[in-house]
Amino acid sequence: VSDLFWPGDERAGSLMTQEALLEAMVAVEGRWLTALVSAGVAPPSAQADLTGLVTGADVEAVASGAEGGGNPVIPLLRLLRQRILPASENASRWLHRGLTSQDVVDTALMLCARDVLDRVADELTAQVFVLSDLADAHRDSLRVGRTLTQHAVPITFGLKAGGWLDGVLDAAGAVSSARSGLGVQVGGAAGTLSAATQLARDAGLADPVGAVEGLVVTLASGLGLGARTAWHTSRGPVTRIGDALVSCTDAWGRVTADVATLARPEIGELGEPVTAGRGGSSTMPQKQNPVLSVLVRRAAIAAPGLGSTLHTAAAVAVDERPDGAWHAEWATLRTLSRYTVVAASHTTELLSGLRVDTVRMEARVRAEAGSVLAERSSVSGPDADPDPATYLGTTGPSIDAARTRAAAYLEGRP
Amino acid sequence: VSDLFWPGDERAGSLMTQEALLEAMVAVEGRWLTALVSAGVAPPSAQADLTGLVTGADVEAVASGAEGGGNPVIPLLRLLRQRILPASENASRWLHRGLTSQDVVDTALMLCARDVLDRVADELTAQVFVLSDLADAHRDSLRVGRTLTQHAVPITFGLKAGGWLDGVLDAAGAVSSARSGLGVQVGGAAGTLSAATQLARDAGLADPVGAVEGLVVTLASGLGLGARTAWHTSRGPVTRIGDALVSCTDAWGRVTADVATLARPEIGELGEPVTAGRGGSSTMPQKQNPVLSVLVRRAAIAAPGLGSTLHTAAAVAVDERPDGAWHAEWATLRTLSRYTVVAASHTTELLSGLRVDTVRMEARVRAEAGSVLAERSSVSGPDADPDPATYLGTTGPSIDAARTRAAAYLEGRP
Amino acid sequence: VSDLFWPGDERAGSLMTQEALLEAMVAVEGRWLTALVSAGVAPPSAQADLTGLVTGADVEAVASGAEGGGNPVIPLLRLLRQRILPASENASRWLHRGLTSQDVVDTALMLCARDVLDRVADELTAQVFVLSDLADAHRDSLRVGRTLTQHAVPITFGLKAGGWLDGVLDAAGAVSSARSGLGVQVGGAAGTLSAATQLARDAGLADPVGAVEGLVVTLASGLGLGARTAWHTSRGPVTRIGDALVSCTDAWGRVTADVATLARPEIGELGEPVTAGRGGSSTMPQKQNPVLSVLVRRAAIAAPGLGSTLHTAAAVAVDERPDGAWHAEWATLRTLSRYTVVAASHTTELLSGLRVDTVRMEARVRAEAGSVLAERSSVSGPDADPDPATYLGTTGPSIDAARTRAAAYLEGRP
Amino acid sequence: VSDLFWPGDERAGSLMTQEALLEAMVAVEGRWLTALVSAGVAPPSAQADLTGLVTGADVEAVASGAEGGGNPVIPLLRLLRQRILPASENASRWLHRGLTSQDVVDTALMLCARDVLDRVADELTAQVFVLSDLADAHRDSLRVGRTLTQHAVPITFGLKAGGWLDGVLDAAGAVSSARSGLGVQVGGAAGTLSAATQLARDAGLADPVGAVEGLVVTLASGLGLGARTAWHTSRGPVTRIGDALVSCTDAWGRVTADVATLARPEIGELGEPVTAGRGGSSTMPQKQNPVLSVLVRRAAIAAPGLGSTLHTAAAVAVDERPDGAWHAEWATLRTLSRYTVVAASHTTELLSGLRVDTVRMEARVRAEAGSVLAERSSVSGPDADPDPATYLGTTGPSIDAARTRAAAYLEGRP
Repeated sequence: VSDLFWPGDERAGSLMTQEALLEAMVAVEGRWLTALVSAGVAPPSAQADLTGLVTGADVEAVASGAEGGGNPVIPLLRLLRQRILPASENASRWLHRGLTSQDVVDTALMLCARDVLDRVADELTAQVFVLSDLADAHRDSLRVGRTLTQHAVPITFGLKAGGWLDGVLDAAGAVSSARSGLGVQVGGAAGTLSAATQLARDAGLADPVGAVEGLVVTLASGLGLGARTAWHTSRGPVTRIGDALVSCTDAWGRVTADVATLARPEIGELGEPVTAGRGGSSTMPQKQNPVLSVLVRRAAIAAPGLGSTLHTAAAVAVDERPDGAWHAEWATLRTLSRYTVVAASHTTELLSGLRVDTVRMEARVRAEAGSVLAERSSVSGPDADPDPATYLGTTGPSIDAARTRAAAYLEGRP
Repeated sequence: VSDLFWPGDERAGSLMTQEALLEAMVAVEGRWLTALVSAGVAPPSAQADLTGLVTGADVEAVASGAEGGGNPVIPLLRLLRQRILPASENASRWLHRGLTSQDVVDTALMLCARDVLDRVADELTAQVFVLSDLADAHRDSLRVGRTLTQHAVPITFGLKAGGWLDGVLDAAGAVSSARSGLGVQVGGAAGTLSAATQLARDAGLADPVGAVEGLVVTLASGLGLGARTAWHTSRGPVTRIGDALVSCTDAWGRVTADVATLARPEIGELGEPVTAGRGGSSTMPQKQNPVLSVLVRRAAIAAPGLGSTLHTAAAVAVDERPDGAWHAEWATLRTLSRYTVVAASHTTELLSGLRVDTVRMEARVRAEAGSVLAERSSVSGPDADPDPATYLGTTGPSIDAARTRAAAYLEGRP
Repeated sequence: VSDLFWPGDERAGSLMTQEALLEAMVAVEGRWLTALVSAGVAPPSAQADLTGLVTGADVEAVASGAEGGGNPVIPLLRLLRQRILPASENASRWLHRGLTSQDVVDTALMLCARDVLDRVADELTAQVFVLSDLADAHRDSLRVGRTLTQHAVPITFGLKAGGWLDGVLDAAGAVSSARSGLGVQVGGAAGTLSAATQLARDAGLADPVGAVEGLVVTLASGLGLGARTAWHTSRGPVTRIGDALVSCTDAWGRVTADVATLARPEIGELGEPVTAGRGGSSTMPQKQNPVLSVLVRRAAIAAPGLGSTLHTAAAVAVDERPDGAWHAEWATLRTLSRYTVVAASHTTELLSGLRVDTVRMEARVRAEAGSVLAERSSVSGPDADPDPATYLGTTGPSIDAARTRAAAYLEGRP
Repeated sequence: VSDLFWPGDERAGSLMTQEALLEAMVAVEGRWLTALVSAGVAPPSAQADLTGLVTGADVEAVASGAEGGGNPVIPLLRLLRQRILPASENASRWLHRGLTSQDVVDTALMLCARDVLDRVADELTAQVFVLSDLADAHRDSLRVGRTLTQHAVPITFGLKAGGWLDGVLDAAGAVSSARSGLGVQVGGAAGTLSAATQLARDAGLADPVGAVEGLVVTLASGLGLGARTAWHTSRGPVTRIGDALVSCTDAWGRVTADVATLARPEIGELGEPVTAGRGGSSTMPQKQNPVLSVLVRRAAIAAPGLGSTLHTAAAVAVDERPDGAWHAEWATLRTLSRYTVVAASHTTELLSGLRVDTVRMEARVRAEAGSVLAERSSVSGPDADPDPATYLGTTGPSIDAARTRAAAYLEGRP
């Protein structure tokens, strides 16, 4: 589905939607139940497959019951129990035992965040390919370098692309580091897993504490997340995701600030891909707006405020589980995630079809040679070589360095 | 509908939803068409009633077409034209003439914002009533005043309520000022209304420029908004709304920080209203969580970042219509609006049913009299009156002042 | 003094400096002591003139003692008492009696904020004059209107100036409203003025509570601020100032985004004032950077985050005086204030000397007439008048409206 | 020196001060000049030792000249040249050749940031030691766990300390990663190092491009920073620092939210270290305010907005060097850096002297055993063991895990 307030939102598909969160919550409860049974904490008769018992179709039912407890776990459990019940009273009874609602919501959010980060990483990879090629293809495409809006010295478009590539690789590093840090949240009521341990003890297990530690590992490996001790009030895992996402929109914001500027008719060095129905105006037939850049810039402007909210929430967390700070995270992370994925997709599309007017680029730098070589004259005197193409300094090695970084990144990707 | 990521979202009902925005956009196009006909710019045959032609049910169709032009106006027009067409080719042709997409989206957003501000104002009014009563009822309810978390000097709960009231009245002032500043956006392609003027000229009107100025006034009064010159790149009207909404969540954040603190079991001076199904835990049967406070605090933490995004967007606006900054506003304003309305409703409910344990309040202040009257002893010596009830200074007049302000505010409300 | 990290900082002079804050704190203590004596709460022998007892030269001494109590009042009092003492033991004893440290700091900050707002208002007034003149002088200076970075329809530079004027007037409205809301903070330890009231009672005054209410009024009128009940935890008065300042930097950010864009060599419609030593590069002799715009944009980017911090601080305030939220405000308000004043000054200078290349403006719009009149052709057909100068719609009345608003604003100024 | 607006600022000493920045700029220019000579780009006669030529005493002279070019490099060069001149005309001529002002400021900021990160890392290390010890010493100190402000289940104070430790270690990881990524900025006018390359060519070097690449490596190793290609418009290196610093204040914000809460007189489980002159009130003799927590919370509230400004600046960067976004970074990074260092020091002091009232902790949990063991009863039935000390689940292993992480971190530190 689309969003009238955020055109292009459908590009994020089901990522970090209510449906995705709900299904992730069901997965968490399901894996936990299985873990309880496998470990012998719960009896074999408690085993149940929750898959499909509650689905995206139940979002409204669960969401509308979420206010009472302040989160959606209680209504989810109510629904799951109703639907398990005919099959297994024991499963209904053992469901969720040992967990607290924050365990379920946080772990489910990490599952959703994993899919977001994976999708973002895929887009970044695509961008790295395209930019690496652009940097190479245009290593000699002469153009004017601009600083503080004014003409500076000659560069090539390959260097510009290499600079974008460097920015994208920085962002990819942050994403990859956030991705590898994703872990389950399992602490029980106050981070001690006391109920789970008591259940293990009551089940007569020899080492109940060890058994519960095993449950956490089982859950984590079952869900494909890391295991770590409870982080109910220690929100670094969340802000790290947020910072990584904002680093992405920063990198793309810079790319699209360049594209929007260089696509101005007076400059005309770059153009967005021409697509039917893209960039039109409701009133001016001649208009071709750089819509992809506009939409990406939108995300780049909106993301930092969301990132800062995650930090503020982390900073005012208190007690063993916080009184509002935690609740402020979910929708903030959702919104930031979807903005980022949509912007990722827009940027990939933009870069993949970017139109580069090398003729116009070169014409301008040659027409302005006197001005853009003023530095050279001040260095080498009035008889300095008047060809801008020979005043490119380390442009080549800089492009190579960015492409080498890119190759290393691509090699490290699965 | 509810939102799994923001429990309680349904309290905002249809306010600032996609459906509301879409219907507001239709209303803008409809009123403009009518204005064109009334003024004689368009022929009588162009008249059409757009009401109901496109409704909330069309959200998906319009939203999914919004990406191409970067906003939802082009797909909306396509749909409206399809549905008008059998009835009136002329209406289809005159639809939207003279407007630009930003005119339609901005004016529609102002209509949605009006409903939001009105609802928030209603909640504020309810809170003013309750707080004014609380301040009066508890003007003598002695309790400990706390500063920097420690016991300071005696106050009364009436003074605390009066302080909350002052904060709520400050917020209400900001809301009322934002509400009165709401105006239509009508500038055409670049703020000159050139197409509309040309149409008026082509229609043979004697004073085409004056006629178009009249169109703006007609549209504004038809929609119940103010008339002002175009503000495509001058976003004070938007940041003023944002600042007012954040001022509300600030005021409620402070109230609920107090409630959450004073509802701690060790303090126990206040309690949230007891409601079936409210405040339960998924694992601990004894728990009664201050869920309303928690949910309001959530909004208070999340709002400032959204307000700052509106300012950033305003600060980087450029040209006659901006290249991304404008697009960042819509969803930000939507999210901020709904957060505020939900928090408004939660706060009203919380205050209306607040449980005040005056016995416990007074017991503590009397038990701690030595400590909380240390200031008095340092002022009047060791023989100072040991009764905390006689060390309340200007508490009474302060309560009266807040209640007088409240009465003046209530009188000014329709 | 200047700031290496914020070039131009010296333009803010002594506004909201440590020296200014310290002297304002002394003024508050001085006026309060006088009020105590005048009202008969303190004996005549307690009267002392604090002026000059502690000055800007004592900043380091006071600041270095501020950490212990978390604010600078205790070390200030220590210093004042030392220096009063030879003259008057009674003055030393009566100093600060009835106040709490937050009263002194908050009221002093309001005094500093007043000077900031007054200076900003003066700059805004200067800008209103200049912009009103620019709008008038260039009402017929034909140029291309640009939207989403692309050429749209013809406008005039007068309309652009009128749009800037509208933005500046919106900001001026916010400043003026914040200015008129400035009030003293006088609440004593926990907002009850209990100590002052006790002192009045001990002095045998007939109506001690009334006498203390009188003290607040005396202090307020002595300092030229409004009187209101204590707002220790109700921070609307602070966020209102912050929002007003950010609204200013928003308005100037938009102006300078335009100037920086239109001063690009490929566009060349505007130029910053040419001043010796301004806009040079450390390496390229030909460069003329739009430094004023650059410096203003810097402030516009930095201000929203500061504004949001003031809101966050307001939102998490708790108890009768908060445990950190209040302390986060001072430096934030200082930084935001100085950024705003410097940007105000830069903008005034920029606008006052703005170079407008009307020849280039008109040449471009005429060269692009086919494109920028495409809308007209779509409205009036292929035979539409090909002169862009006759396709300006309501440009004239819009300029007039902005200038009328300006005149009304200027009339309202002292 | 101290700061009246930010008590405790002196704890950051000279870190990221104007003096430090100025001296770092001199170091950059000095190392570059040496590199030019060593590489044979400049003649031996150009060698000069700039150390001490311009010092902190020149801050005002340099800062006051910074506005004209928009940054402090031009006035710094003027001063350096004046003072070199008698000694060496050639040094004066070769100074800064090949660099642009952004190279100097950015590299100097990285030097200052390195010192900040090192200091923060030292404080984090001290905190890791203290917290590791606290977690161990209190592994059995029974207390009530609190969630959403209410009593939940028993935990130990060791687990609380272990949770703080986990948060501090997360922050330490971010700091360490930002520290290792610090690199020089050397790109010349537009990122091509064209002037340096031309100079190398004019000097007759065989491989001028290779020689200039060597200059960058020499500069980097001379300054103890990494070498990377120019990042004039790719601001990940800056936002990474900002995010790391905010992650620190988040972690400490959470610690001090706990301390401030648990130091409330009604709870009284923790107390700040008692120090003469610390925590006093200007009016209430009995008061002992948790001033360290208050001051740390202040930073935790103020930091996220600054972090978001760095991201916004990164997101709107454009061209080969940006037109305002870059300029917004310096003071923001300075402020954020100093806030963080001061908060680091406050937190270390707080943790090192934290008073833990284990008697009161245990008394409460035993008095409330019925309530805090309600979960256990719901799990094991009414006959469950009534001793809270046996309902601690995985508390022990969680403490061990945090301590093991701590030991690994400490081992990795130099």
